[in-house]
Amino acid sequence: MSQCVGEAGPVSGKLIGVGTGPGDPELITIKAARAITQADVVAFFAKRGNASNARAIAADHFRPGQIEEALDYPVTTEIHRHDSDYKTQIAAFYSEAALRLAVHLDAGRTVAVLSEGDPLFYGSYMHLHVRLAPQYPTEVIAGITAMSGSWSQAGLPLVQGDDILTILPGTLDQADLVRRLQETDGAVIMKLGRNLPKVRAALCEAGRLDNAVYVERGTMANGHVIRLSDKPDDSAPYFSLILVAGWSTRP
Amino acid sequence: MSQCVGEAGPVSGKLIGVGTGPGDPELITIKAARAITQADVVAFFAKRGNASNARAIAADHFRPGQIEEALDYPVTTEIHRHDSDYKTQIAAFYSEAALRLAVHLDAGRTVAVLSEGDPLFYGSYMHLHVRLAPQYPTEVIAGITAMSGSWSQAGLPLVQGDDILTILPGTLDQADLVRRLQETDGAVIMKLGRNLPKVRAALCEAGRLDNAVYVERGTMANGHVIRLSDKPDDSAPYFSLILVAGWSTRP
Ligand SMILES: C[S@@+](CC[C@H](N)C(=O)[O-])C[C@H]1O[C@@H](n2cnc3c(N)ncnc32)[C@H](O)[C@@H]1O
Ligand SMILES: C[S@@+](CC[C@H](N)C(=O)[O-])C[C@H]1O[C@@H](n2cnc3c(N)ncnc32)[C@H](O)[C@@H]1O
Repeated sequence: MSQCVGEAGPVSGKLIGVGTGPGDPELITIKAARAITQADVVAFFAKRGNASNARAIAADHFRPGQIEEALDYPVTTEIHRHDSDYKTQIAAFYSEAALRLAVHLDAGRTVAVLSEGDPLFYGSYMHLHVRLAPQYPTEVIAGITAMSGSWSQAGLPLVQGDDILTILPGTLDQADLVRRLQETDGAVIMKLGRNLPKVRAALCEAGRLDNAVYVERGTMANGHVIRLSDKPDDSAPYFSLILVAGWSTRP
Repeated sequence: MSQCVGEAGPVSGKLIGVGTGPGDPELITIKAARAITQADVVAFFAKRGNASNARAIAADHFRPGQIEEALDYPVTTEIHRHDSDYKTQIAAFYSEAALRLAVHLDAGRTVAVLSEGDPLFYGSYMHLHVRLAPQYPTEVIAGITAMSGSWSQAGLPLVQGDDILTILPGTLDQADLVRRLQETDGAVIMKLGRNLPKVRAALCEAGRLDNAVYVERGTMANGHVIRLSDKPDDSAPYFSLILVAGWSTRP
């Protein structure tokens, strides 16, 4: 059947949010690998001037001749996220990125947007999704989250049975962190960076420091796992998180 | 180099916990697929008399001639999990299963244990892991969790920015559920089954019913997604969960 341009308009392409997993290139799903290979356009986020980490993870599945769209963040973590400048700039960035992809979708091209970890779990992809999903067919292919990759690498069972697991951003206030840590069984603390001294103090105050495990660059080539109480310094790169196992008794 | 039996003892095999993902056979990682194909022994849990769901998800990657170990649960959800009979039976079952696998490990065989979703996230694999990891080399290969597969299928961004995500078992008391739901941004409620009427009441009391999405058999062939308030009945199979998105404002 020929594609009908005219009365019904051209058939638009599909937007696919593709999870690349946390770093190990083999921790991508078969479905994600296939979607990347078959896409007409592959898009990925990066900090301006840096190579895209998601692109590096997924590079094995690229096909020669694919169109690449690098979506470069205009701002860095140097501006505070609650600053109104940050919000304005980042909102404009997502809207422009969505428009760039819409041109391809209107032309009938399938666009795969690479997302580190899982696309809809604290990922930038969601900001494109909410802007484009009302007009275009979409699909989201789940990815291994950074926390799953990290507790697997650590060999650390996080939760079982009736345990509660709480995922906390390290950006919360110390008092908030303490209360949340006291009230949960397992916990994952993301977005460490310069929040690590505060997070360490909160874990200590909540009596959970001894069970805290620090994972840096989980599942990546040069990643490592260490008990937080054995970590001598408070420096943490972007790709780091803390795991607190929830369970003590077991069958 | 020949394997040295004698002074140093035989080289033991490796235990690998392998995440199969939530149901769609393509939502398995490349790493997991390879580990299954290369294993000498593939083990999987099942309810006695039922086919193993994890085995069905991963069947494409089996190799002829592999040894299969079906680990059949002795008890079902009919006995309450806090019952001491349940605990005794299930503990004995895990210990026996670990011994069965240890025989293969002692003989130098690599044993892949299939786990639905992610092995260390509310999974039975962890009970073998903690019993065998002290004596044998182990590896855990992360899997797509049921929640990731489900929010991807629903196209529902769960959390962003500074949001907190809480994973709750549906087995909690209603008052507990209400309080937890009121204090979190995003939430996932697992283990529904006969807990669904209570969970629904808790969501309503917490003012979160309108945002609750019910996912049954997420990513499986006959799965579906529906707003909980549109679901006419309170029956929920084992493979079901509820998602509550955390975010309202966005850049
Ligand atoms: C914007 S969130 C993205 C999360 C991602 N979508 C996921 O599914 O895990 C970024 C945070 O994820 C965590 N992270 C991402 N990759 C990681 C890795 N390989 N090792 C440890 N933490 C990681 C860090 O805490 C970082 O601050
Ligand atoms: C013992 S836990 C296992 C969780 C699994 N290890 C994971 O990583 O998601 C079983 C619970 O997971 C949820 N679940 C598992 N598979 C599912 C699916 N395909 N769709 C919806 N919920 C599922 C149900 O809530 C069920 O009660």
